[in-house]
Amino acid sequence: MARTFALFHFACIVGLVFSNGEYRERETVSVTASNGMPWPMPQQYSSTSDTFTINRNAFKFRATGQSCDILSSAFFRYQTIIFGFREEVLKFHPKFKAGSLTELDVNVKNKCDQYPYLGMDESYNLTISSSGATLNSNSVWGALRGIETFSQLVLQRSKDMFTVNGTTIVDYPRFQHRGLLLDTSRHFLDVSIIKQNLLAMSQSKFNVFHWHIVDDQSFPYTSNNFPDMATMGAYDSKHIYTQDQIAEIIEFARILGIRVIPEFDSPGHSQSWGKSIKDLLTKCYSSGKPNGQYGPIDPSLETSYGFLSKFFAEIAKVFPDHYVHLGGDEVNFDCWKSNPNITAFMKQKDFGTDYAKLEEYYMQRLLEIVSGVKKGYMIWQEVVDNGAKVRPDTVVEVWKGGYQNEMSKITSLGYKTLLSSCWYLNYISYGSDWPKYYNCEPYNFNGTAEQKKLVIGGETCMWGEYVDNTNVLSRTWPRASVVAERLWSAQNVKDANAAAPRLEEHRCRMIKRGFPAEAVNGPGYCFQEYSIHEPV
Amino acid sequence: MARTFALFHFACIVGLVFSNGEYRERETVSVTASNGMPWPMPQQYSSTSDTFTINRNAFKFRATGQSCDILSSAFFRYQTIIFGFREEVLKFHPKFKAGSLTELDVNVKNKCDQYPYLGMDESYNLTISSSGATLNSNSVWGALRGIETFSQLVLQRSKDMFTVNGTTIVDYPRFQHRGLLLDTSRHFLDVSIIKQNLLAMSQSKFNVFHWHIVDDQSFPYTSNNFPDMATMGAYDSKHIYTQDQIAEIIEFARILGIRVIPEFDSPGHSQSWGKSIKDLLTKCYSSGKPNGQYGPIDPSLETSYGFLSKFFAEIAKVFPDHYVHLGGDEVNFDCWKSNPNITAFMKQKDFGTDYAKLEEYYMQRLLEIVSGVKKGYMIWQEVVDNGAKVRPDTVVEVWKGGYQNEMSKITSLGYKTLLSSCWYLNYISYGSDWPKYYNCEPYNFNGTAEQKKLVIGGETCMWGEYVDNTNVLSRTWPRASVVAERLWSAQNVKDANAAAPRLEEHRCRMIKRGFPAEAVNGPGYCFQEYSIHEPV
Repeated sequence: MARTFALFHFACIVGLVFSNGEYRERETVSVTASNGMPWPMPQQYSSTSDTFTINRNAFKFRATGQSCDILSSAFFRYQTIIFGFREEVLKFHPKFKAGSLTELDVNVKNKCDQYPYLGMDESYNLTISSSGATLNSNSVWGALRGIETFSQLVLQRSKDMFTVNGTTIVDYPRFQHRGLLLDTSRHFLDVSIIKQNLLAMSQSKFNVFHWHIVDDQSFPYTSNNFPDMATMGAYDSKHIYTQDQIAEIIEFARILGIRVIPEFDSPGHSQSWGKSIKDLLTKCYSSGKPNGQYGPIDPSLETSYGFLSKFFAEIAKVFPDHYVHLGGDEVNFDCWKSNPNITAFMKQKDFGTDYAKLEEYYMQRLLEIVSGVKKGYMIWQEVVDNGAKVRPDTVVEVWKGGYQNEMSKITSLGYKTLLSSCWYLNYISYGSDWPKYYNCEPYNFNGTAEQKKLVIGGETCMWGEYVDNTNVLSRTWPRASVVAERLWSAQNVKDANAAAPRLEEHRCRMIKRGFPAEAVNGPGYCFQEYSIHEPV
Repeated sequence: MARTFALFHFACIVGLVFSNGEYRERETVSVTASNGMPWPMPQQYSSTSDTFTINRNAFKFRATGQSCDILSSAFFRYQTIIFGFREEVLKFHPKFKAGSLTELDVNVKNKCDQYPYLGMDESYNLTISSSGATLNSNSVWGALRGIETFSQLVLQRSKDMFTVNGTTIVDYPRFQHRGLLLDTSRHFLDVSIIKQNLLAMSQSKFNVFHWHIVDDQSFPYTSNNFPDMATMGAYDSKHIYTQDQIAEIIEFARILGIRVIPEFDSPGHSQSWGKSIKDLLTKCYSSGKPNGQYGPIDPSLETSYGFLSKFFAEIAKVFPDHYVHLGGDEVNFDCWKSNPNITAFMKQKDFGTDYAKLEEYYMQRLLEIVSGVKKGYMIWQEVVDNGAKVRPDTVVEVWKGGYQNEMSKITSLGYKTLLSSCWYLNYISYGSDWPKYYNCEPYNFNGTAEQKKLVIGGETCMWGEYVDNTNVLSRTWPRASVVAERLWSAQNVKDANAAAPRLEEHRCRMIKRGFPAEAVNGPGYCFQEYSIHEPV
């Protein structure tokens, strides 16, 4: 899951265009923020010039249908987000002079689900008029999305007084799976950063946190069954996630309507696993002897599958989402080729010299193990490219360059497909790079209507080689929001110039809410800027 | 002062190299931090295996020579930086079990200067041995640099106990002028961010804060004589620097041995000045009539020079450094060409159609004004390129591509020269970009020894189009530190591979000290990571 050629070439073209003299033009062009416009753009949105006033001391969210902890915590959270983020505590008192709008009625039809899931109903209708403000949704998830939209329409006019315009919104996501990947192996990320990122995600209506929790470099997951994996595989004893912290993150995400899908990538990308699990990794050979290097997980040993069974049985319990991501990308065959035991195994299995078949064999066994613990799986595209049979509910994630052909191929095989190739946020470049993310359209491939239906969404990725606590939030936001709009809004919402003022407002709104969302449109300012504490 | 072609081409090459498959190699290569090594590297440095212990509750800095507020505030600051940054207050008590080292004797020979200045003596000697620890310097500036070095040698071993190895250092900077430019016009930066940045600068031994305070986009400087310039030219009334805040920044920098050189760039880059100063900017014409657009300052009107005299008389008083930066870059002649009054003025002055002569005329007048208020000036290279006569003590800053030829030319004319072309930190690219900054050598041009002597240093620039409070510190650090070493250390300290472990340590040290210094060497971790507060 890394490094497409296309992105680099694109960056070069941008550079050349700049150096051809366009730069000075852009240097002085500022984008003026819109005022009270939502991000992502709802499916249907209209507003009137009627303005309603809200006194923050005399406004309440009211559940008029089903309710539960998810809804009541949203009411609590948004009261603060809209009316007093990082400011004084609100002092509700009915005797305050009310505005013309005193409540948002939130009418959830169906009993709350406990956890968000693939295909959950996130639709909602929101109307704000002289008869009041009402949010209708089938599920609590729709209510969450609608309350976020409502929060974006309300503008502060003075300390206590806010306004909102008459508005009619009918809204639902274009794609079911709208994910963001963080990588906590290349660099560790604090729980507080992950939670802050989840909050930011919810404010752009993302619904999947793809947690690339471990990789070659470190293994911060503290396993109940295999505690040595973290003790020996993490960078050090402070760079780990305890079970309590993982539960805290899952709960924080649940309340925001965000699924947590952990990725335990194998058989490659697993060097850190081998620090503690004896004989798990393939021994690499030079001149007929083990050379001290290790390759991917050894697929020729039954002990490998024994370990994987026990490990994924635990993962199935720890992570409540139906899906777990099994990786399967970038398997290097060199070490397998060097090892005589593997060679013998290849012969025994009649694989000839086709190591893709060996990889397929491994993945097939792994997929059966994970199916056995009643989990669905996500995988990177190579697993299918190499011919492994996967279950029909498998979600295949396309990450390499030339994604159009790959999307055609994967959907023609009948698999649910996610796009991430064009949304690698870690590949930074100078200037306003977000239009290239905005312009990437998941349906932009040759395929039938049936094939298009199999595209269930996409993921934007912030790989961790060059980000950690210091910069992950500012590099991710608001650039990730651009992908969020592509995945939520109608396909024809695609004009970057038209989107720019709303994105500018969205960034400033994020800053007002406490996120270090960086400048993406050139020179300018936000009414309220991000602030740090004074140096000591 | 912007945008060289060369940098963009370089970024493309890096991209192509990565996409040619080198990437995966680098992905897993981590740099292991050194332990107790200084950054920048001292001119002469040797250490022994003798280890001395320090109990932080029983250690003091002691002035054994001259002293003053600068030195005593350094003692106070470094006690905290070394022994308890962001931790509990130290409780000095002589009865604590002392380590084998209980004080650093700081022996400053000459009476303290009040302000740092170009050419100040920053040399120092530091010895740590069984006879104690002694820092000798001629000036208080050398003491500041030496105490910073000392702070980098001390390592924490347990809560109260620290160690330092036997060390002998003879140190002085290769270049007198080691600057960092921040731009507070394209995006405003809070005073707290500027102060945090000054602290970071002092920890890499930078000694000049080049404050590009105003530009086309906004005018945050609150002038005493022309208060409307900020009222009408700043983004809004919150995005300004009051005189008190400017004084606070200058004082904060002074105590750290950092000069503050403000830049008031003209005749171009001055759109924001024109918002308040009537008739200052050239009216642009279309079809024989003013078209509502404005160009550079109008050099044909005496009122322009009247304004500049009054304005720079104030600047000369507000900023104590001998130098002020007058800009002079990127003057676009189109508007001048369109204006019939300018055409008439050109004819009257016999300039023909050579608008460079008009620019020269303007700069000449401006330089005389600034000389008249007893200030020296820095200018961007175009001023000399266009033939303006400047005073012999002028500092010319080279920023364009092809800097080698320009350095040859400017030094052959006998001017003091600064290099910044290769150190534009705002041009970000994916991956580990710091070696390209590290490898840029100011002496790398054809010239005599006399010419080389005229190179007084360089500046690294973080232009503000895409940075603000949210990301300026993480993008600047530790990438700027790389330039700091190039400008401080010996010319032969130039092996990026050898420097990488020290840079890694320097980054982690900055994080420990509270700066969000980002990852620059790929995957890895710091013993202590940067942390944020929990989201509410």
